[in-house]
Amino acid sequence: MEGVTTMEALRPIDLLNNARNKRVIVELKNGKQFIGQLKAFDIHINIVLESAEERFDGEIKRKIGKVFLRGDTIILISPE
Amino acid sequence: MEGVTTMEALRPIDLLNNARNKRVIVELKNGKQFIGQLKAFDIHINIVLESAEERFDGEIKRKIGKVFLRGDTIILISPE
Amino acid sequence: MEGVTTMEALRPIDLLNNARNKRVIVELKNGKQFIGQLKAFDIHINIVLESAEERFDGEIKRKIGKVFLRGDTIILISPE
Amino acid sequence: MEGVTTMEALRPIDLLNNARNKRVIVELKNGKQFIGQLKAFDIHINIVLESAEERFDGEIKRKIGKVFLRGDTIILISPE
Amino acid sequence: MEGVTTMEALRPIDLLNNARNKRVIVELKNGKQFIGQLKAFDIHINIVLESAEERFDGEIKRKIGKVFLRGDTIILISPE
Amino acid sequence: MEGVTTMEALRPIDLLNNARNKRVIVELKNGKQFIGQLKAFDIHINIVLESAEERFDGEIKRKIGKVFLRGDTIILISPE
Amino acid sequence: MEGVTTMEALRPIDLLNNARNKRVIVELKNGKQFIGQLKAFDIHINIVLESAEERFDGEIKRKIGKVFLRGDTIILISPE
Repeated sequence: MEGVTTMEALRPIDLLNNARNKRVIVELKNGKQFIGQLKAFDIHINIVLESAEERFDGEIKRKIGKVFLRGDTIILISPE
Repeated sequence: MEGVTTMEALRPIDLLNNARNKRVIVELKNGKQFIGQLKAFDIHINIVLESAEERFDGEIKRKIGKVFLRGDTIILISPE
Repeated sequence: MEGVTTMEALRPIDLLNNARNKRVIVELKNGKQFIGQLKAFDIHINIVLESAEERFDGEIKRKIGKVFLRGDTIILISPE
Repeated sequence: MEGVTTMEALRPIDLLNNARNKRVIVELKNGKQFIGQLKAFDIHINIVLESAEERFDGEIKRKIGKVFLRGDTIILISPE
Repeated sequence: MEGVTTMEALRPIDLLNNARNKRVIVELKNGKQFIGQLKAFDIHINIVLESAEERFDGEIKRKIGKVFLRGDTIILISPE
Repeated sequence: MEGVTTMEALRPIDLLNNARNKRVIVELKNGKQFIGQLKAFDIHINIVLESAEERFDGEIKRKIGKVFLRGDTIILISPE
Repeated sequence: MEGVTTMEALRPIDLLNNARNKRVIVELKNGKQFIGQLKAFDIHINIVLESAEERFDGEIKRKIGKVFLRGDTIILISPE
């Protein structure tokens, strides 16, 4: 049983599972950053953030509430 | 039953399901924005907007009515 | 029966089905526009236009008759 | 019988089938044009032209005889 | 038995297996470098680093703790 | 029998089959040209050239002997 | 028997098989070169080099030991 848990802990998707409902920073290929509560993701790394805001060079550009981000534009996801 | 609903609520595609027939903002890789009523989408995130208009830097560029947007050009989709 | 019809109406490909034999505007990733009668399309969004002309910044650049456009170069398709 | 024919006529690949052994213009993502006799194509839109020449801005750059063009570099194919 | 081990040693993914829990340098297509402890990876080369920091031209730009890096943005991974 | 042969002659991959062991010009997306004897290829259009040299704007840049070229960087292949 | 061997000799992956444990030059889409001993590769052309060094315009930039290079960034691989 423990072995199974350990195996599962080794997949990148587990970081996203553990970050669910927590605030994460998402960086896109075009240089934009989105910070928000991670509500959902899938195997393509499409994700949904809630209470999200967009930042550029550390500054808040705008608040956008709920947002769907397409996986192939994402560089990284990091718990805040 | 509730468990199933909860599971489904965790997929990014559910944000799109909940936004159906509502106005959404769509941002493309080339910097363009389209705002319109979300009528349809598929797993490639190809989408159809109705009563759509194109914006660039917040300004309306043109009204285009019904439009099919190819998924691989989309960065984000957000309910207005 | 009606349910099935409704379901089908929710797919992006249905916009293309409804636009068949009508004039559509197609925008490509390189900024070019093609306007023509939509004769065919497939799941890759490869399309064929007839009586097509190419425009750039709203101006007609040339008439090209029948043209096959590869799906992965397409940003949007909109009924004229 | 007629229905089947009609169905087939609706696929983009049929334009290519009808253009086989005829001269076509092929435009690539890098701006180059190739004109030649369409000898072969596959579902990736890889194509082979014979008696081909390369053009740029309408001018003949060189004659290259037989050429294999990889599908993912192609924007459009049009009967001359 | 030895033969099987040898076979497995020939797959690129084995380098990543051997580097698990060790510090690695990851270079992205946008020129950024991330250094951290390799905690997880999958067949898409999506990876998770812990105790990570971002560098650019050899200089530390910021510490980011735990980070998920999407595989298609990665150029190389090298044990430090 | 003849029909089968004819069918096969219509696939782009057949041009490559006929060019095997002959000298071909390969152009890449980055503008480089490689000329060499075509020894191998696969469905991804990954190819191997022997006695190859690199050219840029028609000039020989270097001789590189045997080289594996990844298919997704290739624009065209033409018998010399 | 000989026929089978001949067939196998015609696949691009065989060049890589023959180069295993030998020094190869790898060129990436971003212009960087890596030279090292080829230890492993897979069908995506992900590769592992040992005793590797990075070069740019022919000059050694740094020694990096063992390195995993993601296949989709690779243009060519050539035995030194």
